[in-house]
Amino acid sequence: MNEQPSTAERAQALLAEQAAYVDEALDRLMPPADAPPAPVHEAMRYSVFAGGKRLRPALVLSACRAAGSSEADALGVACGVELIHTYSLIHDDLPAMDDDDWRRGQPSCHKKFGEAVAILAGDALQTLAFQVIVEQMSRPEAACRVLSELTRAVGSRGMVGGQVLDLAAGQSPRPPTVEQVEAIHRSKTSALIAASVRCGAICAGAAKPVLDSFGRFGENIGLAFQIADDVLDVTGSKAALGKATGKDQAQGKATYPAAAGLEASRRRARELLTAAANELNGLGPAAAPLLDLARFIIERDH
Amino acid sequence: MNEQPSTAERAQALLAEQAAYVDEALDRLMPPADAPPAPVHEAMRYSVFAGGKRLRPALVLSACRAAGSSEADALGVACGVELIHTYSLIHDDLPAMDDDDWRRGQPSCHKKFGEAVAILAGDALQTLAFQVIVEQMSRPEAACRVLSELTRAVGSRGMVGGQVLDLAAGQSPRPPTVEQVEAIHRSKTSALIAASVRCGAICAGAAKPVLDSFGRFGENIGLAFQIADDVLDVTGSKAALGKATGKDQAQGKATYPAAAGLEASRRRARELLTAAANELNGLGPAAAPLLDLARFIIERDH
Repeated sequence: MNEQPSTAERAQALLAEQAAYVDEALDRLMPPADAPPAPVHEAMRYSVFAGGKRLRPALVLSACRAAGSSEADALGVACGVELIHTYSLIHDDLPAMDDDDWRRGQPSCHKKFGEAVAILAGDALQTLAFQVIVEQMSRPEAACRVLSELTRAVGSRGMVGGQVLDLAAGQSPRPPTVEQVEAIHRSKTSALIAASVRCGAICAGAAKPVLDSFGRFGENIGLAFQIADDVLDVTGSKAALGKATGKDQAQGKATYPAAAGLEASRRRARELLTAAANELNGLGPAAAPLLDLARFIIERDH
Repeated sequence: MNEQPSTAERAQALLAEQAAYVDEALDRLMPPADAPPAPVHEAMRYSVFAGGKRLRPALVLSACRAAGSSEADALGVACGVELIHTYSLIHDDLPAMDDDDWRRGQPSCHKKFGEAVAILAGDALQTLAFQVIVEQMSRPEAACRVLSELTRAVGSRGMVGGQVLDLAAGQSPRPPTVEQVEAIHRSKTSALIAASVRCGAICAGAAKPVLDSFGRFGENIGLAFQIADDVLDVTGSKAALGKATGKDQAQGKATYPAAAGLEASRRRARELLTAAANELNGLGPAAAPLLDLARFIIERDH
């Protein structure tokens, strides 16, 4: 007799299936690597297909399902969110920013293609994200709502603003407080994750109270996810993560463990996961895969 | 008795009026300079309000009027187009790209705020462009069409692709041919100008044949504009232009005069202007200000 799969096994299988679905669409929607002008398309594909786990697209798709629609209705948004995430990684790795030579076990985009091409590949990925969303969505009104949500989440008051705060924290002589770290994480990481969840629900035509629950769920898991990531930077191995560990701390970057300690960090991530789960209480079994997925990506070990 | 104003005087007055209209809207739509996180909003405003002539927004507004609607219907798109143009200038000036220390008589963004903030300010301006367009337009279907046009014009197969080609030309041992220069100018400059004209017409609800005429008009004036700009780099003075002259040539950049000579460049710009004017023949007097404006920005001396 076979044993029932565990929650983690179910979530991992779902994530793998959604990643394959999104990768197939990204491959179809992106210009071929050899399309002129070389080498910008090669650089765009190099970074998009560098082994990312597609966590954000999986949240878009699962939120759309949890709100009562099929994943196909959110596929364009799922791809757009991953393109935005990839553009932000390319620019964050640049010498003028975090100066990271490695990303997911491979040379970072500017190490492979040079700084100019890396900057331009990031720029073009951001543009492509919005093109894909607007051209893949069938309902213009929903497309406009998604674009408004996403642009607010990733602009100067969201993700980009978080990177500005993060760079400033790295240059400050004083270590950041827990409150400062949370503010950085909320804008740099949670904003896009919360928008992913909300936009998935918008694709399903969710009403405002449902959207607001999804938004709070997303903010909580987004912060928990980044805290878990900070913990892994301290406790994980380079082999499992595909990038240098302990580097955040060495650079004096704003991390939760540095400000609050490892145990308090783990406790805070658990609290946030519980608060997130409570937001989905009213949604019934359709929301179970979304919650499993959130739990899995926060409790993962790489 | 007063004399009638000349075409150039009328165009100049229209451009000044439209620039003031767009500046007021940009000021309203952009985050305040002191909004946290500092200094990214200061950098965004520094570059947006650095004395740009607002040629692209004026084309958006004039195209909307020429296609039978009021300028107010295209104001969000006009602002979005200028935000995109500004983001591209900030990134083009970076040390890894054209390495320009001056822009419009002032230190370029990265000289004033540092490279990291300049990269992020450019990123956030691109995001803000799409946010402003989607939130300011009242008809979602038209907003989606505008976003599709614009993202295609400024992505890896348009403006960004043109910058890739331009950088490659600068590194090539052979001077570029006329055909190569035209290909660079068409993607780096004309694509956004043509999209500005087309998007203005979309805001007015123009039908496809009209849109296509506007598109060809825009491509022709876009190329003519860049050729005129190349000519000014050779013949203009630093005082009038607010930037170093002769620099394109010194850097071995792809310019029309370098490939074809000054006289052939001037002739080509005139031919393109005539071809552009022919596209508007069927539109009657409503199109006159658009054509005056195009002629003025191509025949300008700074």
